[in-house]
Amino acid sequence: MASKKHRKSRLKKAGAAPGTLVYIGDIKTQQPAIHILEYGAESLHEKQLTQAELAHYQRPPSCKLWLNVYGLHETSLIAELGKCFGLHPLVMEDILNTNQRPKVESYGDYLYIVLHHVAYDSVSDQLQTEQISIILGRDYVLTFQERPTGCFEPVRERLRNGRVHIREAGTDYLAYALLDAAVDQYFSTLEKLGDECEELEEQLLHAPNNQHLLQLHKLKGQSMELRRSIWPLREAVNQLVRNDDKFFAVENVVFLRDVYDHTIHLIESLEAIRDQLGSMLDIYMSSISNRVNMEVRALTVVTMLFMPATLITGIFGMNFDSMPWLKNPNGFWWTLCVMAFVASSMGLLFWRRQWLSRH
Amino acid sequence: MASKKHRKSRLKKAGAAPGTLVYIGDIKTQQPAIHILEYGAESLHEKQLTQAELAHYQRPPSCKLWLNVYGLHETSLIAELGKCFGLHPLVMEDILNTNQRPKVESYGDYLYIVLHHVAYDSVSDQLQTEQISIILGRDYVLTFQERPTGCFEPVRERLRNGRVHIREAGTDYLAYALLDAAVDQYFSTLEKLGDECEELEEQLLHAPNNQHLLQLHKLKGQSMELRRSIWPLREAVNQLVRNDDKFFAVENVVFLRDVYDHTIHLIESLEAIRDQLGSMLDIYMSSISNRVNMEVRALTVVTMLFMPATLITGIFGMNFDSMPWLKNPNGFWWTLCVMAFVASSMGLLFWRRQWLSRH
Amino acid sequence: MASKKHRKSRLKKAGAAPGTLVYIGDIKTQQPAIHILEYGAESLHEKQLTQAELAHYQRPPSCKLWLNVYGLHETSLIAELGKCFGLHPLVMEDILNTNQRPKVESYGDYLYIVLHHVAYDSVSDQLQTEQISIILGRDYVLTFQERPTGCFEPVRERLRNGRVHIREAGTDYLAYALLDAAVDQYFSTLEKLGDECEELEEQLLHAPNNQHLLQLHKLKGQSMELRRSIWPLREAVNQLVRNDDKFFAVENVVFLRDVYDHTIHLIESLEAIRDQLGSMLDIYMSSISNRVNMEVRALTVVTMLFMPATLITGIFGMNFDSMPWLKNPNGFWWTLCVMAFVASSMGLLFWRRQWLSRH
Amino acid sequence: MASKKHRKSRLKKAGAAPGTLVYIGDIKTQQPAIHILEYGAESLHEKQLTQAELAHYQRPPSCKLWLNVYGLHETSLIAELGKCFGLHPLVMEDILNTNQRPKVESYGDYLYIVLHHVAYDSVSDQLQTEQISIILGRDYVLTFQERPTGCFEPVRERLRNGRVHIREAGTDYLAYALLDAAVDQYFSTLEKLGDECEELEEQLLHAPNNQHLLQLHKLKGQSMELRRSIWPLREAVNQLVRNDDKFFAVENVVFLRDVYDHTIHLIESLEAIRDQLGSMLDIYMSSISNRVNMEVRALTVVTMLFMPATLITGIFGMNFDSMPWLKNPNGFWWTLCVMAFVASSMGLLFWRRQWLSRH
Amino acid sequence: MASKKHRKSRLKKAGAAPGTLVYIGDIKTQQPAIHILEYGAESLHEKQLTQAELAHYQRPPSCKLWLNVYGLHETSLIAELGKCFGLHPLVMEDILNTNQRPKVESYGDYLYIVLHHVAYDSVSDQLQTEQISIILGRDYVLTFQERPTGCFEPVRERLRNGRVHIREAGTDYLAYALLDAAVDQYFSTLEKLGDECEELEEQLLHAPNNQHLLQLHKLKGQSMELRRSIWPLREAVNQLVRNDDKFFAVENVVFLRDVYDHTIHLIESLEAIRDQLGSMLDIYMSSISNRVNMEVRALTVVTMLFMPATLITGIFGMNFDSMPWLKNPNGFWWTLCVMAFVASSMGLLFWRRQWLSRH
Repeated sequence: MASKKHRKSRLKKAGAAPGTLVYIGDIKTQQPAIHILEYGAESLHEKQLTQAELAHYQRPPSCKLWLNVYGLHETSLIAELGKCFGLHPLVMEDILNTNQRPKVESYGDYLYIVLHHVAYDSVSDQLQTEQISIILGRDYVLTFQERPTGCFEPVRERLRNGRVHIREAGTDYLAYALLDAAVDQYFSTLEKLGDECEELEEQLLHAPNNQHLLQLHKLKGQSMELRRSIWPLREAVNQLVRNDDKFFAVENVVFLRDVYDHTIHLIESLEAIRDQLGSMLDIYMSSISNRVNMEVRALTVVTMLFMPATLITGIFGMNFDSMPWLKNPNGFWWTLCVMAFVASSMGLLFWRRQWLSRH
Repeated sequence: MASKKHRKSRLKKAGAAPGTLVYIGDIKTQQPAIHILEYGAESLHEKQLTQAELAHYQRPPSCKLWLNVYGLHETSLIAELGKCFGLHPLVMEDILNTNQRPKVESYGDYLYIVLHHVAYDSVSDQLQTEQISIILGRDYVLTFQERPTGCFEPVRERLRNGRVHIREAGTDYLAYALLDAAVDQYFSTLEKLGDECEELEEQLLHAPNNQHLLQLHKLKGQSMELRRSIWPLREAVNQLVRNDDKFFAVENVVFLRDVYDHTIHLIESLEAIRDQLGSMLDIYMSSISNRVNMEVRALTVVTMLFMPATLITGIFGMNFDSMPWLKNPNGFWWTLCVMAFVASSMGLLFWRRQWLSRH
Repeated sequence: MASKKHRKSRLKKAGAAPGTLVYIGDIKTQQPAIHILEYGAESLHEKQLTQAELAHYQRPPSCKLWLNVYGLHETSLIAELGKCFGLHPLVMEDILNTNQRPKVESYGDYLYIVLHHVAYDSVSDQLQTEQISIILGRDYVLTFQERPTGCFEPVRERLRNGRVHIREAGTDYLAYALLDAAVDQYFSTLEKLGDECEELEEQLLHAPNNQHLLQLHKLKGQSMELRRSIWPLREAVNQLVRNDDKFFAVENVVFLRDVYDHTIHLIESLEAIRDQLGSMLDIYMSSISNRVNMEVRALTVVTMLFMPATLITGIFGMNFDSMPWLKNPNGFWWTLCVMAFVASSMGLLFWRRQWLSRH
Repeated sequence: MASKKHRKSRLKKAGAAPGTLVYIGDIKTQQPAIHILEYGAESLHEKQLTQAELAHYQRPPSCKLWLNVYGLHETSLIAELGKCFGLHPLVMEDILNTNQRPKVESYGDYLYIVLHHVAYDSVSDQLQTEQISIILGRDYVLTFQERPTGCFEPVRERLRNGRVHIREAGTDYLAYALLDAAVDQYFSTLEKLGDECEELEEQLLHAPNNQHLLQLHKLKGQSMELRRSIWPLREAVNQLVRNDDKFFAVENVVFLRDVYDHTIHLIESLEAIRDQLGSMLDIYMSSISNRVNMEVRALTVVTMLFMPATLITGIFGMNFDSMPWLKNPNGFWWTLCVMAFVASSMGLLFWRRQWLSRH
Repeated sequence: MASKKHRKSRLKKAGAAPGTLVYIGDIKTQQPAIHILEYGAESLHEKQLTQAELAHYQRPPSCKLWLNVYGLHETSLIAELGKCFGLHPLVMEDILNTNQRPKVESYGDYLYIVLHHVAYDSVSDQLQTEQISIILGRDYVLTFQERPTGCFEPVRERLRNGRVHIREAGTDYLAYALLDAAVDQYFSTLEKLGDECEELEEQLLHAPNNQHLLQLHKLKGQSMELRRSIWPLREAVNQLVRNDDKFFAVENVVFLRDVYDHTIHLIESLEAIRDQLGSMLDIYMSSISNRVNMEVRALTVVTMLFMPATLITGIFGMNFDSMPWLKNPNGFWWTLCVMAFVASSMGLLFWRRQWLSRH
């Protein structure tokens, strides 16, 4: 769980000086891959570099740069990039500490944005949260991801597609587009969570059992995990909308406001799911109580059906010298009939009072 | 459910550029219908146009315009209108994304207002939320609805009715009138919800059963859905009352304040219903516990009535050589009498202790 | 219930133009009664007018006026008064829509204050909320009530009682006095609610039954209804204390602060009652669980007392050829003694373990 | 309860003019006692006056005055003092209305502070809240208490103890010292509440019974009562710290901040107790459920131990002509052995499955 | 518990003058140890002094000083240091009152910071909270701890390690480093709490019993205790970030912001743990209900399996003269077969209906 990751990560570094670069997390990709995209209204160049090649890389003048890094376990790479772009030691530390909450921090020359990539792990059916760091400079954008997730692929496509607005606009618009893409991927996660929730509700309403409670517990945990990711996201986006440091052009703020709207949507959908889960717990609890009730009733019915008959057999089993009907050749059968009559009339009574129905 | 619609809708568009016009939702009307109302203090002209005719439409000078569109699945129509009135791409996108929360956004030249039309579907008895977009320009009002709902019909009537205030006042007053009409339609929905709630309470207090819990669950879900629509509505209306962008004349703000009062009423009524539902769940839960209690008591009573009699039959069924009363010709009958006496005196005891009453 | 009244009232008027005068509510008095009080430091004149006489009424110069109306079903009367004192159509509408929340609205020349008169209906034991409208002008005060409630009678007495401060002070002081009187009447309602609550608590602690739950439910509903009336009242009084529009003289604001203190008292008392009710529900729920426990225990005790005896009778009822004690002439009696001994020693055991006590 | 006192008190005065002096509460001391302390850096004079002597009292010039009154049922005394020090009628009213919440009100020339003296009544074990009024003028301090509580005694001692800071400092420092003493006395009350709470927890964890629930209910009520006293106290002290009216010298504000810290401590301790009480209710509820479980289990065990034996006796009690073992001289004993074996092996099974343990 | 310490501590001093130095708490170290660290960019001197030696200590000019005190029970030492560095009496009092909440107070010349050292006591497995006081002057830092905890050791190491940033930077950077170290130690405590919580969850899901509830209760109490320490910590750090008094250089504020981020992490992890604990209580409660259900079912099954067989033995135990099968030599065995058949077919039925499974 993300919270566990949080707690554990600081342990590795307790007492270390700030800016000490230690990668927190598993190594998720073989070798860090650096992807460079130089673009302007007219031109677009893409390059794949290794860490060694990066040292010799010369940035062409007067074009906008998007540098993306997959894989963060080579701390030397981050240090090199940091020196190159003048990043604060704490920013480099936070890029590697992949358990940050979504946040926005201004460092004068550039804006540091932390986002999450949240997805269901296809194997374990657990939520997996990875960190995406975006650094928005005046004419460059740096992005850092733990492994290739493809969540920025649509933006890359739009850049490649000839003369569109995103090519002409500044790097702030590119940062917006990346932000938008990162926010959009929550919807599919929420969609899956919501579907599981509704499926579970369907089952709970018809045949609740103990497994459903565990499932409910799991979904609740996941919804809380998402909550811990989405609420600070909203806060961060809101901060961008306020645009105190003027990193975004005035005409682009309206787009940020649109992203903000999406985060509000996310929160509302999530809270709706949480309401539903809470309501389902109530239903589960009362259905268990209901079942106890039915079990006791079943016991009562059994007892009531057999007890009179047993009493009758006891009566005719007594050893009195003079007892009626004992000499009667059909007495035995008559007695059985009486037992059957008593039992069936009681059964009829219960049926009428709807005691034998399921609720 | 609305929340489901929210989650699903973004999926269709994840990663698309902002301003991409895609209609989210079912097609609810055959062909988009455009209704134009040109009015001034003296004159009123109404026209029904198709999309083709709209291209040739010339707006007469110095009159106020209300253009209403039913049916949003023709994205080209929205694009055309957007170009004509200079709408921002994000506004056009939001008009078609019919899952917006009620909100107010200012775009300098015009105000974009999103409202909901909430009604019970007569067939499925489910709440249906549709989006109403209002664009208030300096001398025009545009309204967009998914299908003809008739909720603006009273306003249209008032415009047609000769020389009334609404004809003389500016388009801001018209926007207020539309807003007021849209807010008013919530009252009937709340009324229906409240009635169902009280009916259910009546039933719950007298004979609670499992079906009532599901009904409670359904009403709770609907109240939450309404809540998600009304709270942002209040927020939006409050924003209009603050009137930061001066779209409303000073003398009309008092009318907006009146609408704001209505939204407060809505919220209070809704919260009252939600309190009631919460209280009903408590009653349901404790009535189930109560019933378990009664069932166990019934079982106890049965056991206590039969056990002594059964013991007596056992006693006289023992095979001792010398036992009293066995030789007695009436011993059998005396024994039965004793059994009956024990059982009936116990029954009397229970009755006195009110164990046989229903609570 | 008030909330029901809220919801229903708007239905009558959906889509109507603002300022349409329709009286919401039952007719509670035969004919509207108009009571006029002209006063100054030296003089005091009281008059009872009918609607017809009102048309010819001439207000004497340089004296303060308090005009009180009982009964609001004659909309023409309100319209006439409105024209006379220059009231805004929305104010007149709100006076007749007797389901407003307590609020304060400034209309430049006058202040519009809505209050509630809350009382227990002596017949149905239900809370009844009626609306009191106060309009505070520079030299007049208008008050509107649905029926004569007598809640302003003490103020009227003070005015009649010769040269007291209230006669010399301005109409703002009169408005304060009326407000104070209206706030004071909540205390008796809270007192009754609190008394019922404590009585119920007493009963619940000693012999909880199902009726108490319904009573609890009723009290909870009433406390919520009061809450919906008192919280906006506090808000309204607070707004008066801020005195943004300078309707109150500086030396009188301290009196408003005193009224504000009273509303805080009201809220605290109410919240204390609500806490108590919540705590009582916990007690009720756990006492039901406790009772289930006791019932099951009773069942267990019965079973344990009879089962061994029944087993013994079964043992001596077996048909073995050679069984001990059967030939013994006192065997039967010895056996009965054994049974009695087993049962009584078990009873003793249970008594020692406090299983037979009530908790 | 305090809340009850609140509700009742206003009833006595409903509709009365503001400033009407009526003492709310029981008479708690025989005769009002007036204690005067004139002090400066060099000198200190103490006097005990009766109401009659007060009329002739001349205050010496250029010395600071602390006048303390015990017993408030003589309204004429308060009126006299009020006239003498120029108190506002509402202040006098509030001094006598001994159900005020802790609050601070500025009246220009003086500051009116209301505090509570909270203590356990040694007889009824109930919380008793009494009102302490402090009036801080430029060179005098007036204090009013319902009866001698001794909570200001330490301050008096410090004043008597020669040349200490409190003698040299202004009356604002004296007011701070009194405030500090009044806040300090909450700690002992909280201490007692906390001890009772922990004692109850100890008992609940080991042998919960019905009495504990009532005790829990009582402690909860008392914690709520304290809460209603402490939260407004914090608010009031905070207002003093802000020191908007400059009644406190700048160098003394740091002391007020210290008192504020104490009120925060009080609130935290109280909330910790409330959390604990809430948690205890959960434990109580689940321990009852647990006990129901154990009772049912006991019933099941009894039934299972006796039923097979009873069946066996039934089998050998049947009247078939040819049945095995009946002729066997030891058949009876063998049968008893079988019964004993079945019962004991079942008992063993239950014991192994830990069904006979207590949880 | 900390809250208990809070409540008790004030009792010792109720009514005392402010600034009275009394040590609250147990004596945790033999003799106070004073550790002095004089450092600059070039030099570093460490000294261990006793209280006697401190009197003769001469501080060298133009170097930064870090003075650390372990053990606070010698109030004279604190008084001496206070005089030496010009500390306010309330600060000295708070240093000795080791039950302060984390807070920051500015006294013009220096900043007084209270932090907590939270750790699990290895013996009692209880949380232990100790107070750390930091005083940040313009060129010195004083730290006070109840006993040597080693939590500042990493900072001391960094100071000793030649020419690093911390040696060159001002005392504000040292204070930051100490703050950072103090915040970091929470992570290991949270880690332990989280691990215990997850272990308990594992156990609860598989075999809940009464002990787990007590464990849950304990963990909940500990999480609340941590909460009462961490929330004010966040508040305090936030106050440092705002840096109203300019004690921190502008370039160091970004480091404080990083610490603030850590406190947010702490809060999120803690709240996640608390959510989990709340969810576990739900699971526990419903699993108990579930078990009651299973117990009742077991009882029902036993009753149903034995009752028909018992009835059959009763039937053939009746004393009718003419009964079928009695003469039949295999009648007894056939009857036993019928009993076995009835019982086993019922068992089969229950098995099919999954009544014998565990849920």
